[in-house]
Amino acid sequence: MSQGKVLIAQGGGPTAVINQSLVGAVMVSRGFPEVDAVYGAFHGVQGIVNEDFIDLGGETAENLELIAATPCSALGSTRDKPDVKYCQEIFKVLRAHAIGTFFYIGGNDSSDTLRILAEEAANADYALRCIHIPKTIDNDLTVNDHTPGYPSAAKFVVGAFAGVNLDNRALPGVYVGVVMGRHAGFLTAASALARKYDDDGPHLIYLPERDFSIDGFIADVKAAVGKFGRCVIAVSEGIHDETGEPMAAKLAQEVEKDAHGNVQLSGTGALADLLCAAIRDNTDMKRVRGDTFGYLQRSFLGCVSDVDQREARQAGERAAQFAHDGEGDGSVTLHRTGDGENYAAEFRLSPLQDVAGKTKVMADEFIAKDSPDVTGAFVDYLRPLLGSGMPEAFRLEAERVGKILNK
Amino acid sequence: MSQGKVLIAQGGGPTAVINQSLVGAVMVSRGFPEVDAVYGAFHGVQGIVNEDFIDLGGETAENLELIAATPCSALGSTRDKPDVKYCQEIFKVLRAHAIGTFFYIGGNDSSDTLRILAEEAANADYALRCIHIPKTIDNDLTVNDHTPGYPSAAKFVVGAFAGVNLDNRALPGVYVGVVMGRHAGFLTAASALARKYDDDGPHLIYLPERDFSIDGFIADVKAAVGKFGRCVIAVSEGIHDETGEPMAAKLAQEVEKDAHGNVQLSGTGALADLLCAAIRDNTDMKRVRGDTFGYLQRSFLGCVSDVDQREARQAGERAAQFAHDGEGDGSVTLHRTGDGENYAAEFRLSPLQDVAGKTKVMADEFIAKDSPDVTGAFVDYLRPLLGSGMPEAFRLEAERVGKILNK
Repeated sequence: MSQGKVLIAQGGGPTAVINQSLVGAVMVSRGFPEVDAVYGAFHGVQGIVNEDFIDLGGETAENLELIAATPCSALGSTRDKPDVKYCQEIFKVLRAHAIGTFFYIGGNDSSDTLRILAEEAANADYALRCIHIPKTIDNDLTVNDHTPGYPSAAKFVVGAFAGVNLDNRALPGVYVGVVMGRHAGFLTAASALARKYDDDGPHLIYLPERDFSIDGFIADVKAAVGKFGRCVIAVSEGIHDETGEPMAAKLAQEVEKDAHGNVQLSGTGALADLLCAAIRDNTDMKRVRGDTFGYLQRSFLGCVSDVDQREARQAGERAAQFAHDGEGDGSVTLHRTGDGENYAAEFRLSPLQDVAGKTKVMADEFIAKDSPDVTGAFVDYLRPLLGSGMPEAFRLEAERVGKILNK
Repeated sequence: MSQGKVLIAQGGGPTAVINQSLVGAVMVSRGFPEVDAVYGAFHGVQGIVNEDFIDLGGETAENLELIAATPCSALGSTRDKPDVKYCQEIFKVLRAHAIGTFFYIGGNDSSDTLRILAEEAANADYALRCIHIPKTIDNDLTVNDHTPGYPSAAKFVVGAFAGVNLDNRALPGVYVGVVMGRHAGFLTAASALARKYDDDGPHLIYLPERDFSIDGFIADVKAAVGKFGRCVIAVSEGIHDETGEPMAAKLAQEVEKDAHGNVQLSGTGALADLLCAAIRDNTDMKRVRGDTFGYLQRSFLGCVSDVDQREARQAGERAAQFAHDGEGDGSVTLHRTGDGENYAAEFRLSPLQDVAGKTKVMADEFIAKDSPDVTGAFVDYLRPLLGSGMPEAFRLEAERVGKILNK
């Protein structure tokens, strides 16, 4: 049975391994004789409406492998979220180009776009197979154990906090690092994996799954400084007060909203600066510094988890296989089948509506009850995903020299 | 001739390879029979005054190698800058512990501390050998071709801008990345090495060696957006107006000064946010994002140049050798002896006063005349220092598909 032409596109925020999924789907699709051609659309659904296509059959396997190892959507991305009218435009173009299968690599917004599009195709009685390939550094897709893109971003966050902890230990003070993640704290929680020794930071971890109060925060910081003589803090950009209002929005002079109605939380250092000011005003700590990890955590060239790389590739390959096997529309989902040393995962095709537009947040079992922290269960969950080659910090071990003057 | 006891300490901001220098000096010193003991002082000169010493003879070679590969001062650091009275206190302790050689790993402030201390020792007729081992991510030490610590931080900046460029190409807009470097633009300039294709960012690079004006900046951004449809900008935290006032200080509500009288420029996102606001107010670009690279660029666990690693180690080893050879006080300095493919460098012992308290900025030949950019000479200067294993970005190359509907 002919699949006709295959079209693939990438949506939403880039990840370090999003091109692994692209290349996986392209290579496997190209290998099926019933596939007439494999097109790529530039800048997601925007590129479809504009008929901005590339014929990926013309790419050498060698160049595709180089693309796979390059972070950030090689086809470009978009923040457009199509409504019914937009989908009708998309549809016109798919029909004109005889597209039979559409792979959309993206997060929950992109999967929702696919869901609408699949409905449109069904209504128009057009044989279109819509398959969602998961990616997001936020790790907030339902059904999935975790999401391609998250482990590499988590590895960046671990390397950042491990380094910052060493820096803060050398020159003690208070440090606030603001991490991406609007509703789900998975990426901020990854900072816990930066700890090795008992007194290592981050000493406090604030997730968007729990209400945040400045008073509680100041009390936590004072207690940590009292105990460690310093304090490293990991904060999600999405922290909010008990009414649900984001702390970042509370102080942003101008609130910028994107097409999805989301308040802009990244690309500004305001939240870190506010928290630092609060610490300076309410404690006697002089050395208070704040960083916002910003775009580096999702695009840094040279920080990737090899487990993530492999799984992202497989997600694309499996998508092409599911399309070939004729299992209909769906979202490729990732399920853990082995833990710890025996970590293993497999892919299934789940109904689009189970993933589309939904957001998964951290389970209660991953969040510490009595302190701003994560649990051992979360550490066990994340560790195998970081893959091999995680650098490690070491300390001097020799004995102190006896004092002569200040006995 | 006995050197007595050797003392080593680390000062100033940490780097990714500062412990290579520590371990190099310790291992070589331990091998000389005329060295009675090798002590380390915790937190630089502060630890000397407090007699807070560790007996580094008790460290195994195995643990020292693990320490060498760990970023950030293993002995801890300090921002204290001793005056004559402080040096007399240091001196009392050195005499009590029969310290004959003092190695201080640090930047221009640390070398100035050594210079004062050497004078104090000479005045007191005490046989103390003071040797400065260079380190700074700012690359601003005089006499040196470059400084251990700089290449690894530069590698981080390159990886960051290479990734951000890909991100910005996938989701076009304006991006401002603020890089460390108060007076010297070397680290910001490193962003130029992130470019591979003609239209790659950073498209604009602002260095503290040139006056900055908001009007000129806005005109540059508009021109770049007109040409590329997007714009990636690298900005030094130290940019200042024509009166010399730092742009960051102009807008900081509270200016915090450290013990050296330096205005705090790092650890706040204010400069990036100001520049983004200026772009939003004066152009029609909607997607404007700013990041401040902050402490990640000097401490990130997992980003190191192998050339930097090797040279930092050699700087420590050579310091121990210079002390053993009895060449007197001085600063270990790094000199380039081969270029490009044949890159090579050697170490010399230079007079302390040639380095102490002085600041080197970028030479005119490294700064483009007619645009906010660096020259090819700078790219040639930095490239060999980044070492092996620099990741590279690739692009799709196949042909576009002909339009059917929108012909």
